[in-house]
Amino acid sequence: MTRNIRVETLQQVPIEKQHIELVERKGIGHPDSLADGIAESISRALSRAYIEECGAVLHHNTDQGEIVAGESLPRFGGGRVTRPIYVLVTGRASKDVNGRIIPTDAIAVKAARNYLRSTLTYLDLEQDVIVDCRMGKGSSDLQGVFRACGTNPIPHANDTSFGVGHAPFSELETITREVSDYIDTVIRPRHPIIGTDIKIMGLRDSDSITLTLCTAMIDRFCSGIGDYKEAVAMMCDEVATQARKYTNRNVVVAVNTGDDYASGNLFMTVTGTSAEMGDDGSVGRGNRANGLITPNRPMSMEATSGKNPINHIGKIYNLLATEMAQTCVSSIDGIEEMYIRLLSQIGKPIDHPLVASVQYIPKAGADETAIMRETEAIIDEQLAGITGITERVIKGELKTF
Amino acid sequence: MTRNIRVETLQQVPIEKQHIELVERKGIGHPDSLADGIAESISRALSRAYIEECGAVLHHNTDQGEIVAGESLPRFGGGRVTRPIYVLVTGRASKDVNGRIIPTDAIAVKAARNYLRSTLTYLDLEQDVIVDCRMGKGSSDLQGVFRACGTNPIPHANDTSFGVGHAPFSELETITREVSDYIDTVIRPRHPIIGTDIKIMGLRDSDSITLTLCTAMIDRFCSGIGDYKEAVAMMCDEVATQARKYTNRNVVVAVNTGDDYASGNLFMTVTGTSAEMGDDGSVGRGNRANGLITPNRPMSMEATSGKNPINHIGKIYNLLATEMAQTCVSSIDGIEEMYIRLLSQIGKPIDHPLVASVQYIPKAGADETAIMRETEAIIDEQLAGITGITERVIKGELKTF
Amino acid sequence: MTRNIRVETLQQVPIEKQHIELVERKGIGHPDSLADGIAESISRALSRAYIEECGAVLHHNTDQGEIVAGESLPRFGGGRVTRPIYVLVTGRASKDVNGRIIPTDAIAVKAARNYLRSTLTYLDLEQDVIVDCRMGKGSSDLQGVFRACGTNPIPHANDTSFGVGHAPFSELETITREVSDYIDTVIRPRHPIIGTDIKIMGLRDSDSITLTLCTAMIDRFCSGIGDYKEAVAMMCDEVATQARKYTNRNVVVAVNTGDDYASGNLFMTVTGTSAEMGDDGSVGRGNRANGLITPNRPMSMEATSGKNPINHIGKIYNLLATEMAQTCVSSIDGIEEMYIRLLSQIGKPIDHPLVASVQYIPKAGADETAIMRETEAIIDEQLAGITGITERVIKGELKTF
Amino acid sequence: MTRNIRVETLQQVPIEKQHIELVERKGIGHPDSLADGIAESISRALSRAYIEECGAVLHHNTDQGEIVAGESLPRFGGGRVTRPIYVLVTGRASKDVNGRIIPTDAIAVKAARNYLRSTLTYLDLEQDVIVDCRMGKGSSDLQGVFRACGTNPIPHANDTSFGVGHAPFSELETITREVSDYIDTVIRPRHPIIGTDIKIMGLRDSDSITLTLCTAMIDRFCSGIGDYKEAVAMMCDEVATQARKYTNRNVVVAVNTGDDYASGNLFMTVTGTSAEMGDDGSVGRGNRANGLITPNRPMSMEATSGKNPINHIGKIYNLLATEMAQTCVSSIDGIEEMYIRLLSQIGKPIDHPLVASVQYIPKAGADETAIMRETEAIIDEQLAGITGITERVIKGELKTF
Repeated sequence: MTRNIRVETLQQVPIEKQHIELVERKGIGHPDSLADGIAESISRALSRAYIEECGAVLHHNTDQGEIVAGESLPRFGGGRVTRPIYVLVTGRASKDVNGRIIPTDAIAVKAARNYLRSTLTYLDLEQDVIVDCRMGKGSSDLQGVFRACGTNPIPHANDTSFGVGHAPFSELETITREVSDYIDTVIRPRHPIIGTDIKIMGLRDSDSITLTLCTAMIDRFCSGIGDYKEAVAMMCDEVATQARKYTNRNVVVAVNTGDDYASGNLFMTVTGTSAEMGDDGSVGRGNRANGLITPNRPMSMEATSGKNPINHIGKIYNLLATEMAQTCVSSIDGIEEMYIRLLSQIGKPIDHPLVASVQYIPKAGADETAIMRETEAIIDEQLAGITGITERVIKGELKTF
Repeated sequence: MTRNIRVETLQQVPIEKQHIELVERKGIGHPDSLADGIAESISRALSRAYIEECGAVLHHNTDQGEIVAGESLPRFGGGRVTRPIYVLVTGRASKDVNGRIIPTDAIAVKAARNYLRSTLTYLDLEQDVIVDCRMGKGSSDLQGVFRACGTNPIPHANDTSFGVGHAPFSELETITREVSDYIDTVIRPRHPIIGTDIKIMGLRDSDSITLTLCTAMIDRFCSGIGDYKEAVAMMCDEVATQARKYTNRNVVVAVNTGDDYASGNLFMTVTGTSAEMGDDGSVGRGNRANGLITPNRPMSMEATSGKNPINHIGKIYNLLATEMAQTCVSSIDGIEEMYIRLLSQIGKPIDHPLVASVQYIPKAGADETAIMRETEAIIDEQLAGITGITERVIKGELKTF
Repeated sequence: MTRNIRVETLQQVPIEKQHIELVERKGIGHPDSLADGIAESISRALSRAYIEECGAVLHHNTDQGEIVAGESLPRFGGGRVTRPIYVLVTGRASKDVNGRIIPTDAIAVKAARNYLRSTLTYLDLEQDVIVDCRMGKGSSDLQGVFRACGTNPIPHANDTSFGVGHAPFSELETITREVSDYIDTVIRPRHPIIGTDIKIMGLRDSDSITLTLCTAMIDRFCSGIGDYKEAVAMMCDEVATQARKYTNRNVVVAVNTGDDYASGNLFMTVTGTSAEMGDDGSVGRGNRANGLITPNRPMSMEATSGKNPINHIGKIYNLLATEMAQTCVSSIDGIEEMYIRLLSQIGKPIDHPLVASVQYIPKAGADETAIMRETEAIIDEQLAGITGITERVIKGELKTF
Repeated sequence: MTRNIRVETLQQVPIEKQHIELVERKGIGHPDSLADGIAESISRALSRAYIEECGAVLHHNTDQGEIVAGESLPRFGGGRVTRPIYVLVTGRASKDVNGRIIPTDAIAVKAARNYLRSTLTYLDLEQDVIVDCRMGKGSSDLQGVFRACGTNPIPHANDTSFGVGHAPFSELETITREVSDYIDTVIRPRHPIIGTDIKIMGLRDSDSITLTLCTAMIDRFCSGIGDYKEAVAMMCDEVATQARKYTNRNVVVAVNTGDDYASGNLFMTVTGTSAEMGDDGSVGRGNRANGLITPNRPMSMEATSGKNPINHIGKIYNLLATEMAQTCVSSIDGIEEMYIRLLSQIGKPIDHPLVASVQYIPKAGADETAIMRETEAIIDEQLAGITGITERVIKGELKTF
């Protein structure tokens, strides 16, 4: 059956030429990202357990869950969490297969705790967090559609839904992601005062880029206001330097502008995340599948994290659309920008979307016939190999937020 | 101080001329919408209680919370919910003012239950739902910024964040909203079998519009498969008729295409929402502030529902940007489409965004100088009157999802 | 098979001749009694549902559960509950029978709410209480032992456990129960200021009886300190008058002696129970099956409320032993006091206890041979008719606390 | 002020001469004991934290809380917990002192987890248990009565309540405690198959003693039914041998008589406690302060574990009455049995109970005048030194269950 792939040119001002561009990224310790990370780690743990137990991934969706903020008393030199963060794991999962029980709740709790341990070094899991679980059983009307691993038929879509993706990243998008990675891989290892809850808000106003960072500082590495100010200054410098590697535009960096030194109102934390003291988090409220929030680009509301990687369109199509766009842009000449939307219809094989809609802005002088032909071929090929997404998600090779 | 308002033309294919357009709306009984509705009703109840108690709205944010699905056994003629839906109310709220205690938890629980009662007629609140509450105290570093009601200074932004809005609605957007309203106000009163959990997915492929509706049927009004099929057919007809009032394009309507009559797998429910049997819901995961999910348009990830209406940018700027665009488009000649993004900076007065970015597509022959001038004036005026948004939210005059 | 019934005389100072006697009763609104009442009402509701569904009572035990106190602000004229009471329903129940699902969680939540409504008139169920449920499935190794209703074999004991009972009531025991009933049936209807959370502590020191009552007053019926003091005085008078009907001993009544008028520290409540403001409650921590706590008498630690009435020894043997003692004392001449202990062995028919131990203090000149013979006959007969206990429990004819 | 101490002889058949005697003990891994142990460990942790923070123990009561059983799949060689045990910590505690916050919730969660870790070696705390916390603030009307540590006034009673104690232990009581200790200190270290959830039910029928033990076996140490049977036989032998050291009476031991080898229905567990698979537990439902349940003796319903050790009568008087009786019996000649009841009155100093009632059975030829005089002296002295109980509780020197 031929796939319904629709490629069209888009007459539109390319992003770099628009006056105003906004890009946001929530770091891995942001409450919404924590919720995403926990949801995804549970889905991966369940998938592995299902495969081990019965050679197939069974129905589950853990793309819900809530992080209810605790209370804390940060203090120069080290304060403490006074009320534990409460993490509610919800969603649903198949709990038995052919009479064998899968300990889904136990798996979920362990995965959540392990994820928190690996993400929040200074969270004391014995006293600073409560991981609760109210996971239900898989909805029976969806349990029929899952494939066994191996040489099996294509799963059928769980819903009428869509995924979106685009490529390439704009300068501001690139900067936002690269700065975030640089903080995680270079700055924090050298400066443990820098927590994992960092929100980067990028604004490009013509050729001026402003990066506003809300950075949770960790109190035990901060003996006094001097250390704090020093860390703020260091962040400003390091981030600006790193950002300028990706642009010739003017870059301004502002860190913790909400602080009020006079009143002692600082963004200082015990564990490096504001979840300890007032900010709740939910799955699917933060970064999209490409790691960014981009109001100048088409976005899907679907949470990618935590959804089952077999037939949940909200997950697979978001990841796939992003990969498709990247592949096309990097392997086909003449594409300035490309936007892809994949729309499923419930119950239909996921490799045959109701429509795969591709829009691109050609570069000047591009061979549009070739672009269309090659794009169609790539889309078709990637749809044919769609189950590869599933495997890579289970292995943890694809980031979902 | 002059406001930083940036108006630019946008060279872009107008939405109606793009080949593919997607629009989605989750009805009021969809689990995500239920979460939104509860969150917003709590915020409104708290605001009213604060005003009554001390003449000002105190800090609160209830834009979190989770609906954990129950289990049910729908049956022709009437089944039952076998495990209650669990609703977790979270967020935070100021619990005392000048030594007077505000019963925030009690207010929240009552507001949530009242909202459920008014939305889900067939939910038995005595046995089908558990409303739990783990609401925290207001974060102290945010408590200073709230205004008393009256002739008071402009509140300061609680965060570095943004809101977006656009106008006018495309045909497909209009159809999606109008069909949804028509179901709620005309079809359901006549056909109580139609539940409130209806997801409308609109696809326009050039001049063909397909509306796919997932419609929760209510089992007590459905004596057998005949009634069910009749309701499906009725919905197809009514929705198509209604949709065609807003377009000359071809309209196809599909209802409950995931059903499998052979296996008896139907979208039949006891209470009219899938929250009774498998679908969790979260605040901020569904419709945007304009009631739609529109991946062809800029969107904000910020939940509008439940946030405090005083200084929470994620709420106020989404509502305001939408209103601004609507006002400009309706009162200024020559605008084909307009997109507005308002970006705040934490701690700054909310009537002075870091930038108010306006992009518009002019109609052929439009007087662009006039458009720019008039747009700027409207934006400036609406920013000056920004606290009107707060008042209308508290009164419940503005929908948030 | 002959039953192992052991009757022996007891050489012991009868209770009325001991110098010091203590008796306590927690009224129906005391947090522990609330927990008991909820537990028992759930068991009864489940039993009825099981019978309706399949003609037999299935395995369940709801003799657990916790009432976590809320917070309140009582005030002359009427205050309010500021944080809802949290009621956690736990235990376990068989959730399906021959493939039919029994909505056990929904039944439990409804029963708990109905019980609260009937017991705490001034509790607003929409905002003052959260009823949560974490009930498990019946433990599979116990599910085999339950009988179908009808002409069926005797159930087998679920545990190695015992029940105890005694008769007759001493004067102090009688007074304590009668005063409690009088408050519930006469005083409260006339004086709604009197809440349901009343703890009566009776002390008999030779021929002096002191009744100390902790009485929750309800603030809306109390316009000022005058009303409060008046209610305290009224209670003292009424209770003393009523008590004196059952004794010639000297009676002193003290009400709310913990009050401190100077500091305004009163036992005043919004709803009539201290569960609203600081006192948690648990099943099985309050009154024994005869409605009293009697440290001068043998007692069982087993909670009677909430246990399944089919084969749970902790329930059936406590109720039965009490009835046996009452029957013997009232129908056999010459018994001053009687104590009965019934010990089960797990897996054995409940009508054949491992031992039925009877101790009695004869009156002077009693015909002990007759007493022994008649007692043995009554015990044997009541054991033979043991399943009558089950039926009366399900009908609500037997009080469990 | 003279203390109201009332000593009277008791004409009563001494326990050893009664025909039937029942004694029960729940081992440390029994769900009710787990609840007690957690409650007490939290109270101790809070007391230490308060002392560290402000030199005094502040108001708290954690004598509530619930263990909701999980689900498990024990299997020869090692199964697993499939649904975590849920532990709800409740109660209340003072959360701030002079403006300093005490992290009571974090302390409670940590103490509970530590206790579980030390008691249930084979419970995986990362996946087999959820420790949740809903602890309230201290009730304000009780906060005034707590003493600072040091040379301070006597605390005032928190309630009108009583404690009871007796001495010496009967043979059966001694056997029950000694066997329990022997299992914990000798048998289990040698035979890790023996879990900590062991219920001992002792029955003495004249001169025949039957000990019925429900013993949770741990599956990983049990490769097959042979190992299981061997462990049962070993327990029978070891327990009988140990028991016979304390009696010349005939001793029969029965272990796991509820097992059904044919159907494979065994008392086998993954972690050594039935809390993993169906048995809930509550504070105060198990052993009394002396470690036993003794329906032939006076008992108090008050939970000793978890109550604050400063002024909570339900704790202090139970511990003290037991110690008093033991002291009198061991240091005064001629006492066969002694029973002590201490009754408080709310608001009065705890060293002046409303009455200290002592009943004793003299040995033949005892000097009753001396007994009375010496008993009164000991009681008076121990009341004078009542705060020593508090200190030893905080240090963990006194067992509460």
